[in-house]
Amino acid sequence: MFKIALCQKPGSTIKTTEECKADNIVIAEKMIEEAAAGGAQIIVLPEIWNAPYSNKAFPPFSEPEGGHTWQIMSGWAKKHGVYLVGGSIPEIDGDKYYNTCYVFDREGRQIAKHRKAHLFDINVPGKISFKESDVLTPGTPMPVFDTEYGKMAVAICFDVRFADFIRKAAIDGGAKLIFLPAAFNMTTGPAHWDVTMRVRAMDNQIFFAACAPARNVNASYVSYGNSCVVDPWAEFVAHADETPQVLFADIDFDRIDQIRDQLPIVTGRRPELY
Amino acid sequence: MFKIALCQKPGSTIKTTEECKADNIVIAEKMIEEAAAGGAQIIVLPEIWNAPYSNKAFPPFSEPEGGHTWQIMSGWAKKHGVYLVGGSIPEIDGDKYYNTCYVFDREGRQIAKHRKAHLFDINVPGKISFKESDVLTPGTPMPVFDTEYGKMAVAICFDVRFADFIRKAAIDGGAKLIFLPAAFNMTTGPAHWDVTMRVRAMDNQIFFAACAPARNVNASYVSYGNSCVVDPWAEFVAHADETPQVLFADIDFDRIDQIRDQLPIVTGRRPELY
Repeated sequence: MFKIALCQKPGSTIKTTEECKADNIVIAEKMIEEAAAGGAQIIVLPEIWNAPYSNKAFPPFSEPEGGHTWQIMSGWAKKHGVYLVGGSIPEIDGDKYYNTCYVFDREGRQIAKHRKAHLFDINVPGKISFKESDVLTPGTPMPVFDTEYGKMAVAICFDVRFADFIRKAAIDGGAKLIFLPAAFNMTTGPAHWDVTMRVRAMDNQIFFAACAPARNVNASYVSYGNSCVVDPWAEFVAHADETPQVLFADIDFDRIDQIRDQLPIVTGRRPELY
Repeated sequence: MFKIALCQKPGSTIKTTEECKADNIVIAEKMIEEAAAGGAQIIVLPEIWNAPYSNKAFPPFSEPEGGHTWQIMSGWAKKHGVYLVGGSIPEIDGDKYYNTCYVFDREGRQIAKHRKAHLFDINVPGKISFKESDVLTPGTPMPVFDTEYGKMAVAICFDVRFADFIRKAAIDGGAKLIFLPAAFNMTTGPAHWDVTMRVRAMDNQIFFAACAPARNVNASYVSYGNSCVVDPWAEFVAHADETPQVLFADIDFDRIDQIRDQLPIVTGRRPELY
């Protein structure tokens, strides 16, 4: 049994670049301190937590791997002796931009990196329109990383729409807990957020932890919030509303073996048919 | 746009074999007449509708393909000029038993057959225990069949637990509507029924129609009921409670193209990563 914490940090309103990034870092730091003080062994930040979620913001906020925000996250992990799933931040590599998550161990060393593999290109007329692929380049399969508790993995937001992508890390890769820095909106959130997280946990009989920005109705992209942690029976272990908060959850991996024994979804697979 | 109807027929209490089967056929016939009179072009029966859902009942109730119950179903389809998705009935083939669905066209010809491919072996201590594999043999991939409306497919109950199995028919096979004769119970039903049906429709951006027996608290296996039809946005088009009823739903396949244009889940897949 171990404790994790999801930092449901407020979503950013567009301001001048440096001021906005600095503000976001200050807010995140306070939440990480609260999470560590509360006994969390793994702390999670939301998607694009150091910048506004906007195609216009991605290039000016982007940093290379090992850059300013990376250094700060590494320092937080080492200072508190925790794992840090660093949500995601805009990354630049050559002339390409990515929506990237870095994961740090208790010493502040990077142990995994994931570039969002499925870009968010949505167009629901009159409700929500966004096209990440205008600016960003898609990544590759999510890495599975090891901890003293067991294997884990991280995907980013729209990646969760693809059951096969999650199955690949959970069933083929052996991840028992998948983190999802994410930011659903006020159209897809009420319609799809809860059921998606529950069924990804249920189908793979794993724990699933989705960390979103808190709702900021003044942001250009309004996040649904509702960060949550789901167990392998599809029950919520913890569930936030839309307000800024640090959400704690106790994770018991014994529950995975128990559920897999009771209901043979993982062991009953017949891959030769699919 | 076309209308379908799910016959949420009461679950069977164990009685002597022939009397019980005859009773079930009479009840089903009345519901099919109601469905046809209501304008349904496709009528669906629930899982194991002509027998009690019990390992003890499967052998004595079993019939070969083309047997008594098959003939009756074929006759209903022809009489009303409708497609009939014949729920499932116990089938015997040589010395093996199957949980089998037959699908008939408007002329009463069999156009598809599916043997449940994932057997239901559950053991939640103190709540529900059942082991189909003690008696039944598992089947193979579900067939996709053609209608004047488009392609469709049928899976049976526990098959729905396997996202890859549904994806195979929907994405690879092109099925726009998947039928699921099913009987969740009072443990898995409240926990998993609604979210499973919603997410299978949402992930594949298709229509999904699950037809269960009505709840009979005197049956050895108590069905959850709650037959439902879900659209590609994960919204219920129709949803029953636990009581016996014919549930109608209007299906508009244009909705599939609309949703797929708005939210690129099907077109955004990256199979090279999975």
